[in-house]
Amino acid sequence: MTETPAASPSASRPPGFGSDNVAGISPAILAALAAANDGPMPSYGADEISARVEAKLSALFEREVSVLLVSTGTAANALSLSVLTPPWGAVLCHADSHIENDECGAPEFFTGGAKLVHVPGAAAKIDPEALADAARRNRGDVHCVQPSCVSITQATELGTLYSMEETATLGAVCRAAGLPLHMDGSRFANAVAALGASPAEMTWKAGVDILSFGATKNGALGVEAIVLFDPARASELAFRRKRGGHLASKMRFLAAQMDAYLADDLWLANARHANAMAARLAAGLAGIAGVEIQGEVEANMLFVRLPQPICEGLLAQGFRFYTDRWGAGVVRLVTSFATSEGDVDRLVEAARALG
Amino acid sequence: MTETPAASPSASRPPGFGSDNVAGISPAILAALAAANDGPMPSYGADEISARVEAKLSALFEREVSVLLVSTGTAANALSLSVLTPPWGAVLCHADSHIENDECGAPEFFTGGAKLVHVPGAAAKIDPEALADAARRNRGDVHCVQPSCVSITQATELGTLYSMEETATLGAVCRAAGLPLHMDGSRFANAVAALGASPAEMTWKAGVDILSFGATKNGALGVEAIVLFDPARASELAFRRKRGGHLASKMRFLAAQMDAYLADDLWLANARHANAMAARLAAGLAGIAGVEIQGEVEANMLFVRLPQPICEGLLAQGFRFYTDRWGAGVVRLVTSFATSEGDVDRLVEAARALG
Amino acid sequence: MTETPAASPSASRPPGFGSDNVAGISPAILAALAAANDGPMPSYGADEISARVEAKLSALFEREVSVLLVSTGTAANALSLSVLTPPWGAVLCHADSHIENDECGAPEFFTGGAKLVHVPGAAAKIDPEALADAARRNRGDVHCVQPSCVSITQATELGTLYSMEETATLGAVCRAAGLPLHMDGSRFANAVAALGASPAEMTWKAGVDILSFGATKNGALGVEAIVLFDPARASELAFRRKRGGHLASKMRFLAAQMDAYLADDLWLANARHANAMAARLAAGLAGIAGVEIQGEVEANMLFVRLPQPICEGLLAQGFRFYTDRWGAGVVRLVTSFATSEGDVDRLVEAARALG
Amino acid sequence: MTETPAASPSASRPPGFGSDNVAGISPAILAALAAANDGPMPSYGADEISARVEAKLSALFEREVSVLLVSTGTAANALSLSVLTPPWGAVLCHADSHIENDECGAPEFFTGGAKLVHVPGAAAKIDPEALADAARRNRGDVHCVQPSCVSITQATELGTLYSMEETATLGAVCRAAGLPLHMDGSRFANAVAALGASPAEMTWKAGVDILSFGATKNGALGVEAIVLFDPARASELAFRRKRGGHLASKMRFLAAQMDAYLADDLWLANARHANAMAARLAAGLAGIAGVEIQGEVEANMLFVRLPQPICEGLLAQGFRFYTDRWGAGVVRLVTSFATSEGDVDRLVEAARALG
Repeated sequence: MTETPAASPSASRPPGFGSDNVAGISPAILAALAAANDGPMPSYGADEISARVEAKLSALFEREVSVLLVSTGTAANALSLSVLTPPWGAVLCHADSHIENDECGAPEFFTGGAKLVHVPGAAAKIDPEALADAARRNRGDVHCVQPSCVSITQATELGTLYSMEETATLGAVCRAAGLPLHMDGSRFANAVAALGASPAEMTWKAGVDILSFGATKNGALGVEAIVLFDPARASELAFRRKRGGHLASKMRFLAAQMDAYLADDLWLANARHANAMAARLAAGLAGIAGVEIQGEVEANMLFVRLPQPICEGLLAQGFRFYTDRWGAGVVRLVTSFATSEGDVDRLVEAARALG
Repeated sequence: MTETPAASPSASRPPGFGSDNVAGISPAILAALAAANDGPMPSYGADEISARVEAKLSALFEREVSVLLVSTGTAANALSLSVLTPPWGAVLCHADSHIENDECGAPEFFTGGAKLVHVPGAAAKIDPEALADAARRNRGDVHCVQPSCVSITQATELGTLYSMEETATLGAVCRAAGLPLHMDGSRFANAVAALGASPAEMTWKAGVDILSFGATKNGALGVEAIVLFDPARASELAFRRKRGGHLASKMRFLAAQMDAYLADDLWLANARHANAMAARLAAGLAGIAGVEIQGEVEANMLFVRLPQPICEGLLAQGFRFYTDRWGAGVVRLVTSFATSEGDVDRLVEAARALG
Repeated sequence: MTETPAASPSASRPPGFGSDNVAGISPAILAALAAANDGPMPSYGADEISARVEAKLSALFEREVSVLLVSTGTAANALSLSVLTPPWGAVLCHADSHIENDECGAPEFFTGGAKLVHVPGAAAKIDPEALADAARRNRGDVHCVQPSCVSITQATELGTLYSMEETATLGAVCRAAGLPLHMDGSRFANAVAALGASPAEMTWKAGVDILSFGATKNGALGVEAIVLFDPARASELAFRRKRGGHLASKMRFLAAQMDAYLADDLWLANARHANAMAARLAAGLAGIAGVEIQGEVEANMLFVRLPQPICEGLLAQGFRFYTDRWGAGVVRLVTSFATSEGDVDRLVEAARALG
Repeated sequence: MTETPAASPSASRPPGFGSDNVAGISPAILAALAAANDGPMPSYGADEISARVEAKLSALFEREVSVLLVSTGTAANALSLSVLTPPWGAVLCHADSHIENDECGAPEFFTGGAKLVHVPGAAAKIDPEALADAARRNRGDVHCVQPSCVSITQATELGTLYSMEETATLGAVCRAAGLPLHMDGSRFANAVAALGASPAEMTWKAGVDILSFGATKNGALGVEAIVLFDPARASELAFRRKRGGHLASKMRFLAAQMDAYLADDLWLANARHANAMAARLAAGLAGIAGVEIQGEVEANMLFVRLPQPICEGLLAQGFRFYTDRWGAGVVRLVTSFATSEGDVDRLVEAARALG
C-alpha cells in the first residue's frame, strides 16, 4: 500500500495516520546505533551485541531461543514459513493476513511455491473448528497440497487480538494435527501491551513454534527478530537467510536496535503509548456526528466510517490515512510510539470542524 | 566467511583486517540517520530523501537512472541478475566471483534456478575471448541453459581492477552477443578511486546495464543501490524486491545513508583513504624478510604470503584476517575508510618484530 | 484422488465410473503406436509425425498454431501458465478448478510461485463481472501479486460447459484488462461434442490464447497438446518443457497418439460416445426412487445424490466412483469412450435393484 | 542435442547412430502395451501392473525397494536429486554429466535452485580423492552452498564405466561424508551387461541410495524407474512427482513397459546386443586408414576421429551422428537394441569406401 499523498506538506504538516511505519526511530534506538559504532567488530552476527540480544530474548521468553535478525517483516514471515512447509505444503492462514495480501507473494517465493490456504474466522482471526477441518483436508492425497503449518497474526491486520484462550485453543488444534504454528508478531508488542500477558504465555506456552517479533513499526529503524522456540530449525534458517540476501554484514547495527528496543522495556512502553493514542483517537472521534467506529479498538489501529465531507476534508488538509480497502467510507487510522496527544487532538478537532 | 576469532580482544584490541565490513559507520552517514529522523515520512520509498538519492545518482552517472535501494550486497546482486536471466539462463561469470562463492546460492534462488557458468580469466577477471566463446555456446539448443547475461566484479574479489579498456571490451562482447551486463560494484568506489575514471565511463558508457553500487563496505550501516541504466526493468525489479522481503518500510533511512554517502564525495574520499591504507600496508610489509606481496595492490585489498611465525604470531596477538582460501601461507588483508595509519603501522611493526 | 478400491475385482468386474482415466487406449491409437515403430526416427520432436500433428492442429483450429506435446494434463496446464504469468503474478481461476485442487501445486512450481486467486461463479464457471473486478484489483501496488492471466476449464470439473457466449464474454474481459486467457481443455473434446461449435470458435475466436488440448482422458495412452495461438511464446515454452522433464526423447510416440486421435475425427467420435453414455446413465438413474441428478448433465460426467443403501450396495458390488467431495450422498460418475451401453445399463439395473 | 538432419531420407535410409533414442520400441514392450489395454484399471499407479513392477525390481535388486515411474530420464534424475539436496545444497557431479549439460537446468528447477558443483576425474568419472575434497569444502559456512549429495553416471556420457571397485570407493567416500549417492542409470543396462555384475552389487551394495533406472534408450517407449533403496524418501518423492506433472494417470501403460522390460531379461539382452554392436563397429572402423577410436569402447557408444572426407561423406549419404562436441574430427556413434549387424556393416563399408 502506498500512502495517499498529502495535498500540501508543510513545515507543520499534519500528522500521518497511514501506518505505524511512517514514524521514525525511537531516540534510544538511534542512540544505540551511535554507541555501537565503536571500532571494528566481527561481521555477520559474530559480534557481542548479537549474542546479547539472543540472551535477552531468551530471558524475555523464559526459555532458550534461537534468534535470527532480519530487516523487514516480510522477510521475517517468509523465512519463518520456509522452514515450516515443504514446497507442496499448504500454509493455513486467514484471508486477511499480511502474508496473503501485503507481501507480493514472498511466502510463495521463500517456500518454493507452497500454497496459502484460507481458514475463515471473524475479525481476521482463524476459527479453531475451521482450522481443525482444514488441517485434516486432503491429508495423504498425492494430488493435493498438504497441510503443513499454520500462521496467525497477533495483533491482526484489523487491529484485533487473539485472547490468551484463543491462541491456546489454536495451538492445541495445531498440536493435535501435527502442524507447527507461526505467529506474525509485526505488532506483537501492541498485543502484549493490550493483553497484559507475558511473552511466553502469548507464544510457546500457547503452542507457537516460531514468532516474527517485530520492532520496526514500534520504533526501530528496521529490524525484526525471528524467534525460534525450537532451535533445531536455526541451522536451516541461517542458510535460507543468507540465500535470501538477509544476512547483514554489519549485523551489529541490527542487533543494536533490538538491544535498545528490549532495554528498559522500551518495546512495551512504546506499544502502550501507541495503544493509548488509538484509544484516545477512538474516544475523540466517537463523539462526532456521523462517525462510526468499527468494532473494538484493541491495539493501535482503528477503522472508522467517516462521512464523506470529513474524510475528504481531512485528506485535503494533509492528514494521511488509507481509505480504499474496507468498504465505502471506512478509513484506517494507525497510531505509533511517535503519535502525540497533540497529533490525535489535531485530527479529532479537524474532523469535528468538518462534521 | 566467518572471521577468525581474535585470541584476546581487549580495550585496545588490534585492528581488524578481515574485511571492510568489520568497520562501522562513517560519521556523516550516522549523522544523516539522525537528521532523517524528523517526524512522519511516507514509507516504502515515497519519501523525499529517496527521490533525492535517485536524482543524485542520475547526476553522478550523467544519465537518468532508476534506483532501488536494498540493505545487502547479496540482495543487490541477486535481484539484479533476476531481471537479466530467465530460469533456464546461464549467468556468465568468473569462478572467483562473489555471486558464485559467497552468496549461498542467492542468484539461483532469485532467478528461479539459473545456472552460473564460469568464464576463465586471470586475476579474477573474465577473459574477453573466453566470454565470446561462452556467449555462443549452446545457443538455441533446448537441452541446454541459454547464455542470458554476464556479471563482472569491479573491484574483483582478488582486489584487482578491470581497466577502462578491459571493461569496454567486455561490454562490446556482450552487446555483440545480445547479453546484458551486470557489474557487482560492492567495491565500486574503490575502483573509481583507483582508476580515476568517471562513474559513467566505468559503467554504461562501457556497456554496463545494471550496477550494484555498494556503500556498506565503504561506510554505510547497510545500503546498496541497484542502479538501472535502462529504467525499463525498474517495474519488474520493484516487485521482485518486495517479494524478496527487501522493500524497507522506513526506506528513508536507507536513502539517508546513500544521500550522505554521495554528499561532498564522501564515497570517493572514503575509498581513496582505504586504497591508500592498502598501499601503505603493502609498502610496509614488502620490506620484511620472507613476506611476499601477491600480484598488484590496486584497491583496498592485498594478498600476502607470510612466513608461518609471522602469521601465527599476528593472529595470536589478536590481529584478524582470513588465512584459509588462497594457498599455503597466503593471507588476505583488507583496509577500509576506518583503517588508520596507526592501524596499518601497528600491523607492520608487529609483523616485523615477529620476522 | 485415488479411486475407491473395488471390493472384489473379478473376470467380469463391474465397470469403473471413477474417472475417464480408468479407461485404456482407443484401438486406433494403439495401432498408431505400432505403426510409428518403424526404424530409427529423429528424437525430441524432429520427426515427421510431430510435424504432421502441428499441421493437423493448425488445420483443425483454422490458424497457424504452435504445438508442444506433453504426457500429462498437469504438465500441460502448469507449463501453459508458466509462460503467462511472472512469479509475482496472480492467476485468476475458479476455486473448483483442477489447477487449484488436483495438481499438488504444479502451477505454483512451474510459475516460480505465482498465486492462484479465486474468482467466483456458479457451476464451477467464472462470473464475468467478478473477473473484471479481480482483473483490476491491486494493479500496480508493489505489495500485491499482480493479475497476470486467467484460466478457465472447458468442460469444467463439475461437468458443466461455458456456452459460446460465456467464453466470448470472458475473453472480452481478459482483452480489456490485458490479461491472456488459458483454457484447461482436459475434456475439450467433450465440450466441442456437446456444444457443436468449431474448435476455433471455442478458443481463439473467443479470446483464448493457450489451450491445453487433452487426449489422455479420451482415448490416448498419455498425451496432451499445448496449443499456442500466439506462436511467440513457443520458444520460451520449449525451454520450460525440457527443464520440466517433459521433452520426450521418443517424441514420435506421443505424436503418433495425437495423430491418430485427430484422424477421422476419432477425438469427436470418442467424446460424443462418452457424452451419450452420460446422458443414458442420467436417464436411467433418474427413474429410480430417491436418486437425484444434480444440475444439468452437459458432457461426460454426472453428479448424483444416491440413497445410502444404493451407494453402499454399488460399491460393495465392485462398482467404482468417488463419493467424498460433493456433499453428503453425492457421487460423481464419469463415462468415457470405453464405456459401453452395457456398462451403463448394468449400473442402472444394479442401482434399481438396490433402491 | 538435435540430431543432424539426414541429407536424403529414403525408403532404405541409412541407419542412425546419433543416439540410442532414435530407436523405436522393443517388440515385447509394444506387445505389453496392447496386453495392458484390457478394460478399466485404477489410475495413478494403483493398478496391478505397477505393483508387479515394484515387486520385480525388488527381486532384481535383492532388496525391498520403492519405485516411482516417470516418462523421461531428465525427470528421473531431477526428481531424484530433489529429495537429496536442500535448495542451498551443492550437488557434486562430473562436468561431463547429463544433469550438468543436457537437462536445461532441470536439476536446478526441481531442487529449488541447488548448485551443481563439478568434481574432476578422467573419462567422465569422478575421482574419489577429488570427491573427498569437495565433500569437505565449505561445510557449515553460511555463505556457501553445502555439499548435499553426489551424482554419478553409469555408463557415463562418454560411454565409459565405473568398475565395481570404483563405484564402491565413491560410495565409501559418500558414506564417510554423510552424503547420499545418486546414480544416473540412463544406460544402466549397458553397464550391467558390460561389467557382468549384479544390479545389487552395482548399486546399494556399493553405496548407491537412489538409481535412475533407464529403459527408454534400451527399448521402451518412454519409462524410467526411480529406484529408492531407502523407501523413507518415497512419500516426499510422490508429492514432487505429481507437482512436476509426472504422475501419469494411465500409469498402467508405463508399468506395462517396465514389466515387459524386466521379463525374461529383455533389458539385459537388449543391452548386450547394443554393446556388441558397438564393439563390432569399433572393430570394423579400426581397420580403416586415418580412423582413430578414442579410448576404450566399454558399452554402446564410441568416439571416433574420422578423416574429414569420411565424415562428410557419411553425412552426405544420410548416416546420422553427432559431430560437434568432442574436438575436431571426433564423432560420436551410438548403437542400440535396434542396431543390426547389417547397419553396422553398412556404416563400416561406407567409411572404408570413402577412406
